[in-house]
Amino acid sequence: MNPKLEIFSQGEEIVTGQTVDTNASWLSQQAVQLGFTVVRHTAVGDKLEDLIQLLTDIAARADCCICTGGLGPTTDDLTAEAVAQAFRRPLKFDSIAFAQMQQFFANRNKTMPESNCKQAMLPQHAERIDNEWGTAPGFALQQGRCWFVFLPGVPSEMRSMFLEKIQPGINKRFSLKPGKLITLKTIGIGESDIQERIKSVIVPESVQLGFRADSDEVQVKLLFPSDYPEPFVVTLLSDMLAKLGAYVFTVDGYSSEVTGDLAFVVDELMRQAKHTLAVIETASQGLLAAKCIGSPWLLEARYVQRIEKLAEKLASPIAADDLTATAKAFAVATQKSSGADMVLVQIYAGNAEQFHSKEHVIQLFTVLLHGEHFETARHTLAGPAKRKQNQSALLALDLLRRYLQPVLMI
Amino acid sequence: MNPKLEIFSQGEEIVTGQTVDTNASWLSQQAVQLGFTVVRHTAVGDKLEDLIQLLTDIAARADCCICTGGLGPTTDDLTAEAVAQAFRRPLKFDSIAFAQMQQFFANRNKTMPESNCKQAMLPQHAERIDNEWGTAPGFALQQGRCWFVFLPGVPSEMRSMFLEKIQPGINKRFSLKPGKLITLKTIGIGESDIQERIKSVIVPESVQLGFRADSDEVQVKLLFPSDYPEPFVVTLLSDMLAKLGAYVFTVDGYSSEVTGDLAFVVDELMRQAKHTLAVIETASQGLLAAKCIGSPWLLEARYVQRIEKLAEKLASPIAADDLTATAKAFAVATQKSSGADMVLVQIYAGNAEQFHSKEHVIQLFTVLLHGEHFETARHTLAGPAKRKQNQSALLALDLLRRYLQPVLMI
Repeated sequence: MNPKLEIFSQGEEIVTGQTVDTNASWLSQQAVQLGFTVVRHTAVGDKLEDLIQLLTDIAARADCCICTGGLGPTTDDLTAEAVAQAFRRPLKFDSIAFAQMQQFFANRNKTMPESNCKQAMLPQHAERIDNEWGTAPGFALQQGRCWFVFLPGVPSEMRSMFLEKIQPGINKRFSLKPGKLITLKTIGIGESDIQERIKSVIVPESVQLGFRADSDEVQVKLLFPSDYPEPFVVTLLSDMLAKLGAYVFTVDGYSSEVTGDLAFVVDELMRQAKHTLAVIETASQGLLAAKCIGSPWLLEARYVQRIEKLAEKLASPIAADDLTATAKAFAVATQKSSGADMVLVQIYAGNAEQFHSKEHVIQLFTVLLHGEHFETARHTLAGPAKRKQNQSALLALDLLRRYLQPVLMI
Repeated sequence: MNPKLEIFSQGEEIVTGQTVDTNASWLSQQAVQLGFTVVRHTAVGDKLEDLIQLLTDIAARADCCICTGGLGPTTDDLTAEAVAQAFRRPLKFDSIAFAQMQQFFANRNKTMPESNCKQAMLPQHAERIDNEWGTAPGFALQQGRCWFVFLPGVPSEMRSMFLEKIQPGINKRFSLKPGKLITLKTIGIGESDIQERIKSVIVPESVQLGFRADSDEVQVKLLFPSDYPEPFVVTLLSDMLAKLGAYVFTVDGYSSEVTGDLAFVVDELMRQAKHTLAVIETASQGLLAAKCIGSPWLLEARYVQRIEKLAEKLASPIAADDLTATAKAFAVATQKSSGADMVLVQIYAGNAEQFHSKEHVIQLFTVLLHGEHFETARHTLAGPAKRKQNQSALLALDLLRRYLQPVLMI
């Protein structure tokens, strides 16, 4: 029997629906991978009695509870107070937490407001969880059968704290048999197309097959039981990869634990190949460069609204009725002026109105110049402007990825 | 006292984190607008005893409960069975529901699979809710103090059924007084600083004051009771605005229902003022331009990794030890070459390593050139590279916003 885990989210913004509780789903995924059975999510607002009741109930029925939110400096942040009352553990001043918060503000040349002092008050005998990513420290404590972990609600802080402060020691507290989760990350193909392509692959009943789509990628998830024979893992994975081909840009959980998103994969490949890149963006309007934050190989990026103006700046004429030829000429001009050995150029056919209307599609032309050679791609983009923007940034990055690493092998 | 409402979601895919429960947030927003107080969200998987326990608990503590999911044809869809057992209401065959499902399949030239018959079994004395958008009918029933509404988990079906079958009659069941939510959106100031600034403003007990921080903005939320006198709303809001000054970039829910984020507000202001803008980005690396997607006034944006290279391209020298002067010179050069009447330039002091390390801070210098005049700002940015990137994009946009609309008045 796996240990039972519950997720508890605190925040008026969650119960009133102003925030979608993505913390709960993220934490659940982590917990399932670690080998817990997640039995329940609960979200409550900032009513102290509700919090106390819920903590008391969970202490009696779960083996582990991860709580997020309610650790902030303001009067509606009541988690520590609720723990103190529910479990009769008066709040105590934690001088180390206090010093860390002061340092956080000092690093930003700011004085810590008085209200933050509240965040240094932790329930008696709770173990402090350092927050290197924000001000609110977390804490953990055993109450009855349940080990409670309290983390801030800000997703980036919560995730970092969970991954760096909670996950590494979790096996000391629980006897867990983690399943093996392998995730194939794809781009440029939809969920139903993926299902169609892999429908002839036989997935044994003990292996959980799932899909997850977001705006950046579609993931195929395979959860293997802990005792699943390695050769069968390899066979199933190879079959899947054969069906999905170059749409798969990375595999998480097989040879490496976690890779990252497409920008991460491209960053790794560009560093290995020691290339440099210059970018001309149109549809993505800066987002392509923005996704490459931290990449030393990106020398420059440029967005110019009107293609005529861009042609003028690059002293490169527009080829009539041939956007691929135009993009190629822009790439050559940019290669010279930037000194980068690779250039990505993106142009689209369609006016501003078509771009911004979710009823219309645009045709996107992407060209990659490497040395003296070109790779080209053409896509039809639909949906609201933000979706077109994001897709065009990703598809340009993907042209680069497909050149650097055409098909993934395991 | 508003009636208390709970949201209950059933589905293994939710508790395991494979699906983010957007139904809960959507329903909560609807409920709050109608005048309910939403007190809790709960999600459980497909364990019958968990479902029964939860239904029993909710029947004792809430006035209304909206349940989604678990109405499908498969064996793990257990909601109706759980209701039958929890409330001793045996399942009865509903011939109208059955006929509607048959019609649904007939309309699609398909035969109804046998497994779907299960969906026509409803708890005794439940009121059927017709589903014109899919196969699973919903149902509603009064149990103890609580009115339960059961809807399918497919978001599009659930939303249509709620809006067309539940919402229109809700005032006959509940005496509802919808509140008025006003949100002040700020940038460049933390939650605790805000609280410090407004602590002398007297907020009556009947007005709910809340805060919400994400990576883009910090919101101050005021929820007024429906009968709160308008002049007092104005007074409280004016007091808040006076304390928060130029940090507030927009107010939602007062004169206009919803505005948007900072980029939205800047877009409106730039369109009204008929300005055009060129941008030089460093720390934000394309993200500033990317946030302005859809803005016709943004003529061009440029990112160049090395400041020496940028100076060379602009034929504008670097002023020794004076990044503000350097940025001003870059702005003047860009104003000439772009034809834009306004230019935003951003430069930071600090090397790539400092930028990418979450342990280090960078100094950001932002300059806005409008006509022949300059606005300047200087900020210390901390945290991981993505945070520095996002903050530097927002702070540049905010310099523009502060010039166009220094202080918001109501």
